[in-house]
Amino acid sequence: MHRTKVRIVEDALDANNTIARANREDFDRHGVTVVNLMSAPGAGKTSLLERALPLDNVRVGVLEGDVQGSYDSDRIASLHVPVTQLNTDPGFGGECHLDANMVRSALPSLPLEEIDLLVIENVGNLVCPAEFRVGEDVRAMVCSVTEGEDKPLKYPLMFRSAELVVINKLDLLPHLDIDLDRLLCNLDAVNPGVERIMTSARTGEGVDELRSWLSERAASRAAAGV
Amino acid sequence: MHRTKVRIVEDALDANNTIARANREDFDRHGVTVVNLMSAPGAGKTSLLERALPLDNVRVGVLEGDVQGSYDSDRIASLHVPVTQLNTDPGFGGECHLDANMVRSALPSLPLEEIDLLVIENVGNLVCPAEFRVGEDVRAMVCSVTEGEDKPLKYPLMFRSAELVVINKLDLLPHLDIDLDRLLCNLDAVNPGVERIMTSARTGEGVDELRSWLSERAASRAAAGV
Repeated sequence: MHRTKVRIVEDALDANNTIARANREDFDRHGVTVVNLMSAPGAGKTSLLERALPLDNVRVGVLEGDVQGSYDSDRIASLHVPVTQLNTDPGFGGECHLDANMVRSALPSLPLEEIDLLVIENVGNLVCPAEFRVGEDVRAMVCSVTEGEDKPLKYPLMFRSAELVVINKLDLLPHLDIDLDRLLCNLDAVNPGVERIMTSARTGEGVDELRSWLSERAASRAAAGV
Repeated sequence: MHRTKVRIVEDALDANNTIARANREDFDRHGVTVVNLMSAPGAGKTSLLERALPLDNVRVGVLEGDVQGSYDSDRIASLHVPVTQLNTDPGFGGECHLDANMVRSALPSLPLEEIDLLVIENVGNLVCPAEFRVGEDVRAMVCSVTEGEDKPLKYPLMFRSAELVVINKLDLLPHLDIDLDRLLCNLDAVNPGVERIMTSARTGEGVDELRSWLSERAASRAAAGV
């Protein structure tokens, strides 16, 4: 019984990786750099994008993944940034993550010719989004200080697979019992030396740094001539 | 392709419900009331239990569900409350929820003869835990005000299936831009009139009410003679 279950899952991930590679080829052909942005629900992904976008000299598009509704894409659209909403609720009471095939189904509605950088805002969830490549160049995640020090240890796969960890809601630190040093130590325990940016979407702290990071991702592709 | 996928999922849920019923029969035979406690990561489930437990006149046990580690069960054990840790990481990079079969595997290590109430603290996730019955009598969820007003609309299944919604971290309200009335309106939109308790695990506000709610769940079973 257990063997059967594992076999099915491996096949599913195999298929996912095949489609993720196809997505990646399409993104490459259009010269689009793709960031897969992940976090727990309410960590502030959309609020950070509202603060950071649009970028100077880099044309950005956003793909919003949600179980239901278009609340986040409405917020992004008001920035005059091209945005596509992807809802996962047709599958099984709501899929808890984006997979490569869902992103593939959104490709025809993405203006790939007109953007340099695509930010895919994944479904709010610290577990499964990390298990499914969608064709991204890079993974970034947001961790809110309100979530406590222990999250890297309890959800190690996502923290380990991210190339950037944004620590958000710094403005709330004076009102929390959290030990920020311990959070950063726990992060180093699962992903030693990973790049981190400290932000507050509310005050704007650190948003310039996030903006630079996003711009540099797109620029490094252009410099490499891919 | 799509039809096949749906059929597999339905079979999996069917099997889950069969096992959930078997769990429920075992809980009933021992006169144990079971609360399935769910939330996003870091909403404060464990902190609320630390504040609320133990209860007067009701013998409580806790089953801790986490992807990895025993951080929460260590915290509960220090209250001298019997606790069992269930880790989901052997399956597929970490399952994002408890299912009935995982809970079944923990039954032999639960002191069912010695408790009246079992609180199952599910994996922190607003999507999949709501899709899997585990044999509970009642579902409760915690929503932190730091997560924003929109979560009931974005994750409706969990908010709709809960019989109690605990709104936590009230102490942070003065430092947030959240509109609490709008959060409660959104909650009513997906689960009209659902019972709610307003809490702060940090200050202890509302914890007496939560304690009463838990005690009454166990007492109502005793009164019904089941």
